[in-house]
Amino acid sequence: MSAFKLTKHVTGYTFGDPVETGIIQGEKTYGHQELPLEVHVEKGYGSISFSLTKHDRVYGLGPNLGGINKRGRQYESYCTDDPLHHEDKTTLYGAHNFFILEDDDVATGFFIDFPSRIRYDVGFTDMDLFTIDIHGEDFTLYIIEGDSLKDIVVNFHAVIGKPYMPPKWGLGFFQSRWGYETEEDIRKVYETFREKDIPLDGIYLDLDYMDDFKDFSLSGDRFPNFRTLVSDLKEDGVRLIPIIDAGVKMEEGYDVYDEGVAGNHFVKDESGKPYVAAVWPGKVHFPDFLQESTRAWFGDKYQFLTDLGIEGVWNDMNEPAIFYDETSLSEGIEAAIEAKGQNLGVMPFFALRDKFMNIGNRDEYYRRFYHEIDGKRYSNEEVHNLYGFQMTVSASEGLRKHLGKRHVLISRASSIGMHRYSGIWTGDNSSWWSHLDLNVKMLPALNMSGFYYVGADTGGFGGNASGELLTRWMQFSIFTPLLRNHSAIGCAFQEPYAFGEKVTAYNRHLIKARYSILPYLYSEMLKSYEDGSMMFTPLSFEYFGEEALQAEDQLLLGEELMIAPVVKSNARGRYVYLPEDMALVSFREDEVRLSAAKAGVTYLSYGMEDLKFFLRRNRMMPYIAPGRSVKDLSMKVIHLVGYLETEAFYTLYDDDGTSYGYEDGMVYKTEFSARRDEDGDIKVSVRNENPNIEKVIFTLMDGDENSITKEVQV
Amino acid sequence: MSAFKLTKHVTGYTFGDPVETGIIQGEKTYGHQELPLEVHVEKGYGSISFSLTKHDRVYGLGPNLGGINKRGRQYESYCTDDPLHHEDKTTLYGAHNFFILEDDDVATGFFIDFPSRIRYDVGFTDMDLFTIDIHGEDFTLYIIEGDSLKDIVVNFHAVIGKPYMPPKWGLGFFQSRWGYETEEDIRKVYETFREKDIPLDGIYLDLDYMDDFKDFSLSGDRFPNFRTLVSDLKEDGVRLIPIIDAGVKMEEGYDVYDEGVAGNHFVKDESGKPYVAAVWPGKVHFPDFLQESTRAWFGDKYQFLTDLGIEGVWNDMNEPAIFYDETSLSEGIEAAIEAKGQNLGVMPFFALRDKFMNIGNRDEYYRRFYHEIDGKRYSNEEVHNLYGFQMTVSASEGLRKHLGKRHVLISRASSIGMHRYSGIWTGDNSSWWSHLDLNVKMLPALNMSGFYYVGADTGGFGGNASGELLTRWMQFSIFTPLLRNHSAIGCAFQEPYAFGEKVTAYNRHLIKARYSILPYLYSEMLKSYEDGSMMFTPLSFEYFGEEALQAEDQLLLGEELMIAPVVKSNARGRYVYLPEDMALVSFREDEVRLSAAKAGVTYLSYGMEDLKFFLRRNRMMPYIAPGRSVKDLSMKVIHLVGYLETEAFYTLYDDDGTSYGYEDGMVYKTEFSARRDEDGDIKVSVRNENPNIEKVIFTLMDGDENSITKEVQV
Repeated sequence: MSAFKLTKHVTGYTFGDPVETGIIQGEKTYGHQELPLEVHVEKGYGSISFSLTKHDRVYGLGPNLGGINKRGRQYESYCTDDPLHHEDKTTLYGAHNFFILEDDDVATGFFIDFPSRIRYDVGFTDMDLFTIDIHGEDFTLYIIEGDSLKDIVVNFHAVIGKPYMPPKWGLGFFQSRWGYETEEDIRKVYETFREKDIPLDGIYLDLDYMDDFKDFSLSGDRFPNFRTLVSDLKEDGVRLIPIIDAGVKMEEGYDVYDEGVAGNHFVKDESGKPYVAAVWPGKVHFPDFLQESTRAWFGDKYQFLTDLGIEGVWNDMNEPAIFYDETSLSEGIEAAIEAKGQNLGVMPFFALRDKFMNIGNRDEYYRRFYHEIDGKRYSNEEVHNLYGFQMTVSASEGLRKHLGKRHVLISRASSIGMHRYSGIWTGDNSSWWSHLDLNVKMLPALNMSGFYYVGADTGGFGGNASGELLTRWMQFSIFTPLLRNHSAIGCAFQEPYAFGEKVTAYNRHLIKARYSILPYLYSEMLKSYEDGSMMFTPLSFEYFGEEALQAEDQLLLGEELMIAPVVKSNARGRYVYLPEDMALVSFREDEVRLSAAKAGVTYLSYGMEDLKFFLRRNRMMPYIAPGRSVKDLSMKVIHLVGYLETEAFYTLYDDDGTSYGYEDGMVYKTEFSARRDEDGDIKVSVRNENPNIEKVIFTLMDGDENSITKEVQV
Repeated sequence: MSAFKLTKHVTGYTFGDPVETGIIQGEKTYGHQELPLEVHVEKGYGSISFSLTKHDRVYGLGPNLGGINKRGRQYESYCTDDPLHHEDKTTLYGAHNFFILEDDDVATGFFIDFPSRIRYDVGFTDMDLFTIDIHGEDFTLYIIEGDSLKDIVVNFHAVIGKPYMPPKWGLGFFQSRWGYETEEDIRKVYETFREKDIPLDGIYLDLDYMDDFKDFSLSGDRFPNFRTLVSDLKEDGVRLIPIIDAGVKMEEGYDVYDEGVAGNHFVKDESGKPYVAAVWPGKVHFPDFLQESTRAWFGDKYQFLTDLGIEGVWNDMNEPAIFYDETSLSEGIEAAIEAKGQNLGVMPFFALRDKFMNIGNRDEYYRRFYHEIDGKRYSNEEVHNLYGFQMTVSASEGLRKHLGKRHVLISRASSIGMHRYSGIWTGDNSSWWSHLDLNVKMLPALNMSGFYYVGADTGGFGGNASGELLTRWMQFSIFTPLLRNHSAIGCAFQEPYAFGEKVTAYNRHLIKARYSILPYLYSEMLKSYEDGSMMFTPLSFEYFGEEALQAEDQLLLGEELMIAPVVKSNARGRYVYLPEDMALVSFREDEVRLSAAKAGVTYLSYGMEDLKFFLRRNRMMPYIAPGRSVKDLSMKVIHLVGYLETEAFYTLYDDDGTSYGYEDGMVYKTEFSARRDEDGDIKVSVRNENPNIEKVIFTLMDGDENSITKEVQV
């Protein structure tokens, strides 16, 4: 074991000879730090365990099931495509090995830099024990210290690098569906949004647009005028965002396949031949994204899309998902042939059935193909969690090179480190109430891992959504930076207008509200970029007391808001815990109303027609008039609503929304302040750098619900 | 359509020529009642729809997913074995077509007497519409009126007949596991319970005890001394409860098979030959339980068990579940043979995979075998929901005949009507927190259907339970009449002692508490038998107001208690809504403590070590000292805890616990009363019929937590 300091707060301990994952950045200063806990390492295996008191909590682990507090479950870091996310699942699409253990008195952050399987048992098998099993002997353990939970996160973010920042239009509303089959379907969706007066910034394109599931191809039949479609819609502020999958169809004459073979870009099997797996296109090869040359080659392929006017992409199936491989399918077929005419007992029958039923994503597939890193061969299993990450690096670099301005990019598989290159959607969820609830719980952990441009498929991907579920989900999702309604082929339609006029009206109201608060969300993202702070924070990161610790379905947003969505069917409201007096904000297009909400537990009536959230004491939040796309939004008039007891400040961050200037600090800051002077008079002021702002309207409530309005010209 | 009155409150409307299901009892008085709603009937199909205002609620539908209020989901009445009960599921093992629609001002009960598929869309597809699709044109619709929700239930129960009543030992604690493979395993479980000082009344035997999955057989290898085992354990108050499946193994020389063939007892396929399906024993025939002669024959087979000292049975796989049938397996095998050597595209691959993956319980299987009723042939699909019901009638009648005293009997498949013959467990649930929550929500609907001897597999059947989940579940389950811990082979052990000493202590405490309150639960069951009232009632059946309507995770038990279990991981408490002032009961073996709990919302700290519930104002609840089995319990000393403002009464029902005397009113009633006279002095009295009671100890709290204790010798 060798120990090193990375920063004042971050110490690394290296065991064996780990793969360089590229996740952690910065200079290492080797020294003689004591390892403050016991790490057991033997051949092929490492383990750590902590005993837990009943008060200990564990936060983090990225996109996983379970609560904000991760205790009481088992988790696995191993990127996996398994679309039925019920309670038995231990892993989803991402592998994020950062967590904070909060002991009775002290909190410590941990990051395990290791690209293969890690299992966490957080007080599940034994309520008082947290065990971590690392499936390898070569890894680096980082210990991150800080003065508070939030500070530990900031200190961790200082060594993993700045997050991906989407263009401003990336915060608009997106519609998606696997099953918009033709150009006409897409135009119809666009037109319906406009006709129904629902804002829209883009339509995601699923597999349907491709020719025979081939990356960087277009279906001539179904999308004959793709370029015109892209430009027509973009003119009205609506962008198309096509999907790209990891597997490249094996087909001679198909340029990507031919170039990949010629350039030696595909992962190899045991014998050194390109590995054959089957995914959507049937048989495919997988590009070896762990090689820089392959990333550069594949990244350049995205030019096919940027040349067509595309400015955003989603990377899918990059765990990589495998439907079957040749060996296993043959085994199944042979077993069936052998069963013919036999009187099968129940166990032989189950064995036969399982050969087909469980043919997808088998563990052994990932031991059947290899990557070469620094001259050493690794099975995919050994470096598994880097695959989707590095596919996304490839896409990011290709898009940046060929577009010359910011792009939207999200990926299904993820690892910490990828946060520098893209956002993530939380994968193929279902139209389940429990997945709305999960969406709330997952957000802080994603922020902890460095991912800010995140969101779930609103309404749920698999299964049928009801108008009620969609509306309740939207009441939450309008706060998430990535806001996308997406559903699977064969499921009921779930566009905001798919459930009749009443539900359409609810959703129109909510999506317009999203555009109203978009400058606030964008500002908070730019702040997080600057200072590494979380955007969505559990109440327990900020407040003391049992009720705050238990508030698993409420979140703080920025320093200003507390959101408490309804996540249950048939509810007309919910109980909300207010750790301090706040203002209840009832947000409607024509009126934003503030009312006093006293500290303690309260039953909040919350209808489908409402948008309600809480504004903290001595805080202000900006909003603007909605528009039909981000392109339409005007920053001329900024409204500030505040709950003012003594004094309140807000600094609005903004920029041009498209360039990489923010990387060099080219951000406009506008400082709003309001204070009550000795006589009780309220004074407001604005210090402005933003060339677009002309007028600011303050509406400030005191604790007794008296509101005053003041205007400032800037 | 012909209309008739059954009672003052129940009117029937018959469409076409329905199958006689035997569910509804009583004399029909035909007349000219107007049908107060529109029923659309065409060839092979009936439908009803109601428009819903946003305040309307729907209750009932028996063992289904969803809330107490059934709005916002789709349901299906079609008994189905599908063990992964996630949110997309629309049907479980039972088919209960009783529901109450509560309109703004008025509530009406409905029962659809129809034994095949019915689909309910309760404001799912359209939030404002409740549609019912009946897959047939021959059915009877009953409309049940009443003065209140509770009254409607009582009026419905008056026409479906009195419920099954287990022996008193049926309310003890039961341990079960699929995978207790041998006599030694069973003895070990029994001994561990005794050693760990955890009460126990029985061990369920899953398939393991059988010889090759054959009904009414014993494995000579694994259970060589079955009779001795049964009697040894019974001597100590612990009974064995073996499983019986619906399918009879095809095996010449096996008496049940041979007799079934000879007696023409098996369901037939299209060609008139016994239908071949495959279940646990491999290929089986299904007895035609819809024939009285078959029920009598199969019922007599239970004598095999009663002769061995058995006094309880569970009927399983009686939807009936089918793993595959010959036709479909051959199709799968042929498809595999055809795929050999082909380069399968992704769609042909999915088609092949699905032939094996979805081979169980296919709709068409139930169209491939037939029943004969009154000389008319029906496919199983047409009368599907009667199958498990009638298997259980067979078991019930056989056991009653051969045992001569009450028996325990539960069934997986169910239909209303079966409530007269047995209880139900809620099927093969999972070790999911959501299934604990579901358990709470489902109970009132089961009572509405007439089922009182009900409970879920505590800790969950499939998947791995944690000690935390088991303990939280037990904090709820100790109130359910059927209390069984059951888990599946391959899953982690989940006996109360499987999680270390701390969790063992929690569970010991809870199970002992169950035995303490058992006289109360038994009394409430006898009362429900007498008057048809529900035992577990939603708050909305009793109290007004939005919070009461929304209280989906709290229940009233009897007229006395309100239970508010913790149903979430990592919780140290929960919010509870108190519609009125109550007493919080903290129940420990050594001390039952009452404290004042004021009306409104309160955060209740509720640890794993606790048992907490609420006692209503001016109510009392009896309890006794725990015992190691029901056999051990003594009624000599009865404790009454009460929250007394002015006056409180409780009538304790009891009987000998084993005979059928209760059917003729042979029940002991003991009336306890407490009142405060003009001077504020408290007077208590007891009027007793119960020969076992000698002393009564009252502990009564007023609203200010002052407690007094009074003893009465009787």
